[in-house]
Amino acid sequence: MAFHRAAIIAVGSEMLTPTRLDTNSLYITELLNGIGIDVVVKSVVCDDRAELEACFAHAFERTDLVLLTGGLGPTDDDLTREAVAGHLKLPMHEDPAIVEAIARRFASRGWHMPEVNRKQAMVPDGAAVLDNPNGTAPGLWLELRGKGVALLPGPPREMRPMLERIVAERLATRAEGLRLLRRVIKMAGRGESRVEELTQPVYSTWKSGPHPIETTILAMPGQVELHLSTRGSDVAAMDHALDAAVRQIEDIMGIDVFTVGAKTLEEVVGVLLRARGWRIALAESCTGGLVTSRLTDVAGSSDYVERSIVAYSNQAKVELLGVATTLITEHGAVSEPVAEAMAVGVRDRAHVDVGVGITGIAGPGGGSEQKPVGTVCISVVVPGTEPTTRTIRFAGNREHVKAYSAFTAIDMVRRAALRSH
Amino acid sequence: MAFHRAAIIAVGSEMLTPTRLDTNSLYITELLNGIGIDVVVKSVVCDDRAELEACFAHAFERTDLVLLTGGLGPTDDDLTREAVAGHLKLPMHEDPAIVEAIARRFASRGWHMPEVNRKQAMVPDGAAVLDNPNGTAPGLWLELRGKGVALLPGPPREMRPMLERIVAERLATRAEGLRLLRRVIKMAGRGESRVEELTQPVYSTWKSGPHPIETTILAMPGQVELHLSTRGSDVAAMDHALDAAVRQIEDIMGIDVFTVGAKTLEEVVGVLLRARGWRIALAESCTGGLVTSRLTDVAGSSDYVERSIVAYSNQAKVELLGVATTLITEHGAVSEPVAEAMAVGVRDRAHVDVGVGITGIAGPGGGSEQKPVGTVCISVVVPGTEPTTRTIRFAGNREHVKAYSAFTAIDMVRRAALRSH
Repeated sequence: MAFHRAAIIAVGSEMLTPTRLDTNSLYITELLNGIGIDVVVKSVVCDDRAELEACFAHAFERTDLVLLTGGLGPTDDDLTREAVAGHLKLPMHEDPAIVEAIARRFASRGWHMPEVNRKQAMVPDGAAVLDNPNGTAPGLWLELRGKGVALLPGPPREMRPMLERIVAERLATRAEGLRLLRRVIKMAGRGESRVEELTQPVYSTWKSGPHPIETTILAMPGQVELHLSTRGSDVAAMDHALDAAVRQIEDIMGIDVFTVGAKTLEEVVGVLLRARGWRIALAESCTGGLVTSRLTDVAGSSDYVERSIVAYSNQAKVELLGVATTLITEHGAVSEPVAEAMAVGVRDRAHVDVGVGITGIAGPGGGSEQKPVGTVCISVVVPGTEPTTRTIRFAGNREHVKAYSAFTAIDMVRRAALRSH
Repeated sequence: MAFHRAAIIAVGSEMLTPTRLDTNSLYITELLNGIGIDVVVKSVVCDDRAELEACFAHAFERTDLVLLTGGLGPTDDDLTREAVAGHLKLPMHEDPAIVEAIARRFASRGWHMPEVNRKQAMVPDGAAVLDNPNGTAPGLWLELRGKGVALLPGPPREMRPMLERIVAERLATRAEGLRLLRRVIKMAGRGESRVEELTQPVYSTWKSGPHPIETTILAMPGQVELHLSTRGSDVAAMDHALDAAVRQIEDIMGIDVFTVGAKTLEEVVGVLLRARGWRIALAESCTGGLVTSRLTDVAGSSDYVERSIVAYSNQAKVELLGVATTLITEHGAVSEPVAEAMAVGVRDRAHVDVGVGITGIAGPGGGSEQKPVGTVCISVVVPGTEPTTRTIRFAGNREHVKAYSAFTAIDMVRRAALRSH
């Protein structure tokens, strides 16, 4: 059987509160679209057996593939197994292999398996069990009445690998639909409306080509993405059309494009540092360690991140980075000369190649008329050049100022590395 | 009639792509919860007449209040009016007042009203028309069969004022005084299933009290939350019941409860440090600055966070923290003695009261049989006590190991501060 129309159901009352969203469905949609399966409806339903069963019944009736996330845990609230099996009138049995796997997982940490976890070993008759290397809840896969049903755990790191296997092993091989190809172009240093203004005249022409390309703009702190997609059966021609489109955008946006694909900005910078054999040290103030934390999100970053000093106090800036006290008294702690002295100071003391200095006012307090909240000075120094130093006024709350500043600092390292080469 | 159970439907194929979410529902949920109406299900449905009608039919059957957003525009894709009227078998008529309002709106910009916009003036018989000062699409309100249905525009700035009026004029007045009250209990140091096991015998009894309390468990890296909610008209009695319930959980979970309310763990720790007049310095290795970044997410944290050293290399650990080289060669960089030396070293050099040291293997590389990926040693030292040092094996990928480690380190500061007092 082939699948064309999917429904996604996220189970959990917490996602029906004013502060939580189901984001798993985005990843699921991406993978399904990639093999030509459309998502026609997605829902979030509360942890109530009757509601959940009704929601599943509706989805199962209207589509040929239903993916449920969440509600597979060990607690009373976790009712996905029961609701699906209940609606489909499938008896359930305890799977001893699952009990053993869960018990082993607990034992590896020196714990006993709580009795409640036994519930996670219940399997509807006819269901395939999907291993969960990252948690106790196994997934389940059912095929009946010409339809497919997947029960997946809620935590993304448990759900994703399981979904990837379902797609690879059970769905992709049977997808008869049109293929959907995508490109993601990631940019830094430009606002969303500026990117729109510059690229719209070009991407608007793509809709009428032989392989029409849809374009979506997506913005996050510091970063703007263009998502290009096209659907069809001639994969080679579609690939070609997308590549040509990407080149057009690259011609317009130049160095602002930091990658085409999945890489994060910190991964791109990691590749650049590695290629040059450079090590980096950082001196952070208002970002409080966020820049270094992002750089070290990259596996293997210990090869090039030598140290970071979070110098919140002036004393720390002087003692640990060798910033001259007179520089602080003359220009203020938030100033370009201090940012530069921090970058050079941390680089010299760490005996590395690249230095970064950041000082600013994250808010909500500490602002002045001359230096309002959001004022951040960033300095980057790479081999063979003078330091590059910028003062930026970021809008938004403390968290936003930190996020924008961190992104901008990492992007300045990228630009400096590219320029120096 | 009074309303208790609501469904929200967001209409629009664009919200079924991998990059878009329906966020209107968060605002709608907040307003409805505020007057005691629960959202039991929310859905996003594509711009397809049959799907939309089926989705509405399901929601209308299962709940007593259905709010739809989007699909009220002038194009062929905009089908919400037609689908709702179709399912409810209500004939539609053109409302000349709406045509005039839309025409006026266009005229004010010097434009003629395009003929397609006439569609936005179609009103199902019996519906009340809701003015839209911020756009062309009026909203619609229907009451029939003891249920309410609202059709609202998709753009938030058009939807929100309209929703606020519906809530104020049509819902709140008839909410029968039923209010929804919540408490959130946040815990650290226990897994979800352990919290469930310990608290379930207690919270399961709340369902049958004079003020039945619903309980939901929510887990994130390191943190487990119990969400308690109750509905009724006697707010004082409900408050009292919730407070008593919270105390029962606090009695069971003790120091594991770090707050009841909205505060984050780092905010709680900030309050503790401030109350004791303590300043803190950190020495991070595998967490790469994340602990400090979290602590400094709190406004005013510069008062108590003095510095942080991200000492990725052994050289940095020796140079910047005074860790003895022999300690590293004897025990390895990831060891309790090194974590402790980092905590004590950074505290002494910063001349502050509290020191934190973290060293571990975030992975994916760097693990060994004895010290697998996820092994993290954390040491915390506060005035008047010996350092507390723990070795923990966290599961998951690099990002998770970092997140868990950071949370655990901050929680260890909290526990040490409480104990020392």
